Amino acid sequence: MGHMPAEPINPPPRLLMGPGPINADPRVLRAMSAQLVGQYDPAMTAYMNETMELYRGVFRTSNEATLLVDGTSRAGIEAALVSLLEPGDIVLVPIFGRFGHLLREIAERAQADVRVIEREWGTVFTPGEIEAAIIEHKPKVLAVVHGDTSTTVAQPLDELGAICQRHGVLLYSDTTASLAGNTFETDEWGLDVVTAGLQKCLGGPSGSAPITMSPAAVEVINSRKSIEAGIRSEGDAVSAHPIRSNYFDLSQILDYWGPKRLNHHTEATSMLYGARECARLLVKEGIPNAVERHRLHGGAMVAGLDAMGFRLFGDQSVRMNNVVGVYIPDGIDGDAARAAMLNDFGIEIGTSFGPLHGKVWRIGVMGYNTRRDAVLTTLATLEQVLRAGGVPITAGSGVGAAVDFYG
Amino acid sequence: MGHMPAEPINPPPRLLMGPGPINADPRVLRAMSAQLVGQYDPAMTAYMNETMELYRGVFRTSNEATLLVDGTSRAGIEAALVSLLEPGDIVLVPIFGRFGHLLREIAERAQADVRVIEREWGTVFTPGEIEAAIIEHKPKVLAVVHGDTSTTVAQPLDELGAICQRHGVLLYSDTTASLAGNTFETDEWGLDVVTAGLQKCLGGPSGSAPITMSPAAVEVINSRKSIEAGIRSEGDAVSAHPIRSNYFDLSQILDYWGPKRLNHHTEATSMLYGARECARLLVKEGIPNAVERHRLHGGAMVAGLDAMGFRLFGDQSVRMNNVVGVYIPDGIDGDAARAAMLNDFGIEIGTSFGPLHGKVWRIGVMGYNTRRDAVLTTLATLEQVLRAGGVPITAGSGVGAAVDFYG
Repeated sequence: MGHMPAEPINPPPRLLMGPGPINADPRVLRAMSAQLVGQYDPAMTAYMNETMELYRGVFRTSNEATLLVDGTSRAGIEAALVSLLEPGDIVLVPIFGRFGHLLREIAERAQADVRVIEREWGTVFTPGEIEAAIIEHKPKVLAVVHGDTSTTVAQPLDELGAICQRHGVLLYSDTTASLAGNTFETDEWGLDVVTAGLQKCLGGPSGSAPITMSPAAVEVINSRKSIEAGIRSEGDAVSAHPIRSNYFDLSQILDYWGPKRLNHHTEATSMLYGARECARLLVKEGIPNAVERHRLHGGAMVAGLDAMGFRLFGDQSVRMNNVVGVYIPDGIDGDAARAAMLNDFGIEIGTSFGPLHGKVWRIGVMGYNTRRDAVLTTLATLEQVLRAGGVPITAGSGVGAAVDFYG
Repeated sequence: MGHMPAEPINPPPRLLMGPGPINADPRVLRAMSAQLVGQYDPAMTAYMNETMELYRGVFRTSNEATLLVDGTSRAGIEAALVSLLEPGDIVLVPIFGRFGHLLREIAERAQADVRVIEREWGTVFTPGEIEAAIIEHKPKVLAVVHGDTSTTVAQPLDELGAICQRHGVLLYSDTTASLAGNTFETDEWGLDVVTAGLQKCLGGPSGSAPITMSPAAVEVINSRKSIEAGIRSEGDAVSAHPIRSNYFDLSQILDYWGPKRLNHHTEATSMLYGARECARLLVKEGIPNAVERHRLHGGAMVAGLDAMGFRLFGDQSVRMNNVVGVYIPDGIDGDAARAAMLNDFGIEIGTSFGPLHGKVWRIGVMGYNTRRDAVLTTLATLEQVLRAGGVPITAGSGVGAAVDFYG
């Protein structure tokens, strides 16, 4: 118990142009500053219902079972996997980056029988490769990351729903890094469960995980339902093979968000206010417009980086709109240059994990930071830092190319 | 995909005098409205370190391992139990209300061998009863709720640490409802793991779960450590009996909050800002002063309710300072009267769970609402509602008795 004279929160101003978290939209922070209401206040349950409807718009689905898991994006992933998978169930995880490894890890801890196929970071699978693995492993669930921020590329999913349906497999995808910045169609593509987070293209802070579940997924999940002992009535469900977590028991969380309003956790009201505002702004803009916004500003960033001489990382044909990987130029100390960006200009760009660490920077253009001024300022300051590090760059090349891209 | 014209968040003004959540301190909401910084920004890691130190002050401990779990209070409970308990481990849960049932449920889902002792709601156990059960069941962990909001009473814990130490048992307690409103001494009482939430006496919104762990608890938890596959280096820990959750793996969360800064989830920055401010205000006030504040205003509320003729629920000698249960007067429809309080006066009081539902209201005086005006307004309006329902009450009796209590 020290004697620290802690001061009120007063963070330095930062322009966050890494792979996320990024700056929250000020409108989202304002929504979160609203005072609380009770858990079952009619105003609160109305906000919960509106949040469900708004996220149907964001996920592009008519799934009734669309709600928030109270935790960061990986809380949503774990809720999906532990609610779908029983010990011994076979799950197939195509791994093409760090977050594929995370899906594997979470499924292993749920004691599922995890089968993986792996690809080099920066590449993705063909639908045929995935179908072949489904035929070989006969999984109950195919669990696949959409956009893996660790590699900047997104696995095309548009053909996987039909493949899964053909083989009687449930399709789960983690869209934390990609949703609202890249085309994603839950219903049209045949996804069964989709999870996300707020801290990337949705323009909010980390801490709430939107999720949507198809009727088929809900049936599997509800078959494991056990009503909590402390609030159980006679005749209430008690499963012989319950979900191995209370906090992530989606059957209970569904009863809390549904008409029964059966108490589970105490909803994280401020995070719900924020999550609702993220979705409200996106639905108002129109999801296709939001995707186009990310394509435009992400494209301008790539044009600028390319003109400055950066070599791009990964298969560019499947790169997400909202993040690009670039090889760190020879002779540049990646961490020192990132520190100079932060200390001299207040701008954060991202490092990388695993095999890319020390070799690749990741630069994000997403959510509130999909702005011309954010893109141009990042390029202008990066030019200064690289030149100071001895990299020969034509003055103004990055900004000029981005301006040209905007046209 | 409907066509709802969703409006910005604009909740009705409410005075929340139920068992929680209660109104957040406006200073906490202001802290949460601050803009984000990057996950490894020196400003962010400094805030994380300060938050750890501040919660050592709140928990009254010198435990290095003091941090936040990103979720509601039950996320903290589940993190504690799944990180401590392996399948088959014996855990003893004394149950005296709904949240004891929750500890049992969470431990059962973790496949622990759960032994329970039960008491009637509104009462608590003697230390001797708990020691006898420890001797009978020989648990690895004693998991006990401190204050169970469902019954308003708190299990005295001051003798349990010594008992547990004598029998080689780890002592875990959930203090969501009680912390900072009632005396609680992690180190002096010999607690090994303690969890909490923000939405009661801490004066914040639900969504972040402070936790502290003794060196003995950390040793047990770290013996199960496995570094996440996607960021594992050669020689890194891989356990043969890993924690059965990734999100709640406290050994990984410790590495994220510790000097290694090993990536786990993306910290919920806005919730951290809020949690830090809750603790900062309390540490500045002094924890004993905060407890006294709850005793004073909670006592005034009880004096007022008593003078109005309410019969109090539960063993008053062990009632929490911050919440009181009262029997709903004969002839009053509990839910209709609560609705009148909300609709006519904007004041929320609480209903009850399980055996107390329909019989007992719970009225809270905690956190930001430990105020003379909040207490007196609640008593004044409750008088109106009861009189309208036909209950004979001496005009001004409740407010008068509370004013007298304040002296």
